Amino acid sequence: MRAYDILLRKRQGAELSPEEIKWLIDGYTQGAVPDYQMAAWAMAVFFQGMSAAETAALTMAMADSGPRLDLSSIPGIKVDKHSTGGVGDKTTLVLAPLVAAAGIPVAKLSGRGLGHTGGTIDKLESIPGFRTELSTEEFIQTVEEIGLAVASATQSLAPADKKLYALRDATATVESIPLIAASILSKKLAGGADAIVFDVKCGLGAFMEDEEKGRALAELLVESCRKAGRRACALLTAMDQPLGRTIGNALEVQEAIATLKGEGPRDLRELCLALGGEMLYLAGKATDPEEGQATLARLLDSGAALAKMVQWLKAQGGNPKVVDDPKLVPQPATVVDVKAPQAGYVTALNARELAMVAMGLGAGRATKDAPIDPTAGIVLAKKIGDYVEAGEVLATLQNNSTINQDQIHTVQGSFQIGGRPGPMPLILGRIPASSNPPA
Amino acid sequence: MRAYDILLRKRQGAELSPEEIKWLIDGYTQGAVPDYQMAAWAMAVFFQGMSAAETAALTMAMADSGPRLDLSSIPGIKVDKHSTGGVGDKTTLVLAPLVAAAGIPVAKLSGRGLGHTGGTIDKLESIPGFRTELSTEEFIQTVEEIGLAVASATQSLAPADKKLYALRDATATVESIPLIAASILSKKLAGGADAIVFDVKCGLGAFMEDEEKGRALAELLVESCRKAGRRACALLTAMDQPLGRTIGNALEVQEAIATLKGEGPRDLRELCLALGGEMLYLAGKATDPEEGQATLARLLDSGAALAKMVQWLKAQGGNPKVVDDPKLVPQPATVVDVKAPQAGYVTALNARELAMVAMGLGAGRATKDAPIDPTAGIVLAKKIGDYVEAGEVLATLQNNSTINQDQIHTVQGSFQIGGRPGPMPLILGRIPASSNPPA
Repeated sequence: MRAYDILLRKRQGAELSPEEIKWLIDGYTQGAVPDYQMAAWAMAVFFQGMSAAETAALTMAMADSGPRLDLSSIPGIKVDKHSTGGVGDKTTLVLAPLVAAAGIPVAKLSGRGLGHTGGTIDKLESIPGFRTELSTEEFIQTVEEIGLAVASATQSLAPADKKLYALRDATATVESIPLIAASILSKKLAGGADAIVFDVKCGLGAFMEDEEKGRALAELLVESCRKAGRRACALLTAMDQPLGRTIGNALEVQEAIATLKGEGPRDLRELCLALGGEMLYLAGKATDPEEGQATLARLLDSGAALAKMVQWLKAQGGNPKVVDDPKLVPQPATVVDVKAPQAGYVTALNARELAMVAMGLGAGRATKDAPIDPTAGIVLAKKIGDYVEAGEVLATLQNNSTINQDQIHTVQGSFQIGGRPGPMPLILGRIPASSNPPA
Repeated sequence: MRAYDILLRKRQGAELSPEEIKWLIDGYTQGAVPDYQMAAWAMAVFFQGMSAAETAALTMAMADSGPRLDLSSIPGIKVDKHSTGGVGDKTTLVLAPLVAAAGIPVAKLSGRGLGHTGGTIDKLESIPGFRTELSTEEFIQTVEEIGLAVASATQSLAPADKKLYALRDATATVESIPLIAASILSKKLAGGADAIVFDVKCGLGAFMEDEEKGRALAELLVESCRKAGRRACALLTAMDQPLGRTIGNALEVQEAIATLKGEGPRDLRELCLALGGEMLYLAGKATDPEEGQATLARLLDSGAALAKMVQWLKAQGGNPKVVDDPKLVPQPATVVDVKAPQAGYVTALNARELAMVAMGLGAGRATKDAPIDPTAGIVLAKKIGDYVEAGEVLATLQNNSTINQDQIHTVQGSFQIGGRPGPMPLILGRIPASSNPPA
């Protein structure tokens, strides 16, 4: 085979065979296929697309470009959850202990944040003592012992994905739905997941602003998983306003704990139950997602999920007392309230602008190695549909350094105030679990 | 500026500014913009196209990526001719002395052949003693003395074009009409042409098989020239069967000399007069192309063009006696006739297949440094519209080594024999000289 012929065929709109895709990815990983041919191929894929079969083949080739994580010593169906990234999205912090309490083994690798959405690892690291850098043995042993571990993703999983993603990032070829899908899936497969629930977010604060594109990604993810021999389903969820009432690492840990106590915001609880219900269904622990949701609601209300959280914190070195005293997470030196310029209902809340401010406050990274201020973030006193009086607090900004007028103005401007808005559904659609994957 | 933004804008279908294009090409020439970004950009151009203004800007940027040839010491309007490449296309060998005889200074840089179409330099080098490697001083001095010189293109002209072409060749992005146009034009501008006549060939034996694409290329060439401050026009000509009756270097020299003597094939004479008429018109030596054609016909018939050929041969070291005795060019050791399997009219003649056989016989190069057999080639005894008896000679193959049965069969199969075909026009269209270029 020749890389030239493969990229010519893709340019012409042909469907590449699994053998061609594997040959290309192996060659690229080993350096036999140069960056410039791969860049031209990625741009051709941007314009010509890829079928679910091609996406599955690319996924498998990238997942196999390095060693896969072997979770076979852990009994049970390992169901992972993947979110395409949203603002204030702390669902993993709630879901991991919640579904573990239901008996699903959770062996989750996660990343740090880059850009405007936060990373689960950064959030966990704001808990005093919590260790996310686990060896493979330690990681698997923790899951075997308590049914749950979340660790920072290592560099060696799916190295082809890492190399291709960096190239796409430099060549304006990130925004290709099949390339996005294969990148997500390859890491999940390399991480050893048996089944996957996707949370594909759409709206202003999401990577996919457009619901139609979000649906296309969700469908491709589910179908490519099926072709790669994994069961999967996806929820399409709204990300116009932040999820819950907090943005920022320590703030989100506090909100997750509150949710495990039954005191969290309604939208966060609703999403965790919806995603968790699908996970229980895929794991064979419920006859349908609704039954799964009911089981999880009982585990939340009974305190079983919170008890699993305590067990988890102890296992990974975190201070378990944060559950009883959330003030044990780092506290900010500076706190500023943002007030409403007029009375009315909040009709819109720009998640992307709020996320950019939170990043500027210190909650996220603009570049890969930038430090993070765990206390930095935003608390939303009001969300869409809430009524506010003129001068009432809309949001509170906080961090360990200074807060400037621009940041305050931006947050004020990210609230639109007007007449009472209609209902805003959180869950926009569902791509159901595919039938049994091909043998 | 950032290469990323420029290629993102092109991917999105935006029109790039001349400044952006110049920045990109300068960066690429100097190595600041890496191959992989340029490859992604070229693929984006393949899908999104470029306007005439963008094509002109790319042309200028590439023409200025190295020193331009300065022809200002040569008086008169330097009109160049460029063919997109055809089989048996020896027009330059006829046109150069013909238009020089009409008083147009001919300072032509030409290339060697690669692939299935021959190069003018290879043809000239089959003349004993002929030197094509001239220093710039020698080249210009020859034009000053006899009004005519043809030399091998040096590496230093338009280095960005050379670098980009090699990249396109490896990334399946050659077949982009604006990139083809800019590549052609940049070399012509760097070579010092004041005005250009394009011969855009369409059909089986041409780079552009499709007449519609050929017309698009011709129109873009003329319009981009105008935007780059040069007058230009184009003829769209048929390349389904070879031009004239010979394919191969020494054979084509003989046929060109015969044409200068008034003894050449009708199609070759017709094309030379048509292209030459346009050149005289652009040079201001005729009030319209038809008057230019009439002038050139007189110069052919009077022997003035042949006399200029003799002068030219002497000036560049070639043996001028080849004009009187064409057998002084290298003669083949092996000659094989290909005969008609049945009687009838020749209805089609596959120029591409004939060219591939000629290359296999030794007339062309499959790789850049392969040697050439000057005697190798094909003489066509019959062309489309000719009647042939069963067993009569269709063509003769020749070279200095061996000829195999496959080659004979392929040539036989490249002739289709049937009922009398309709007329086949040689000149398919004309894109007239643009009005005066912008100041």
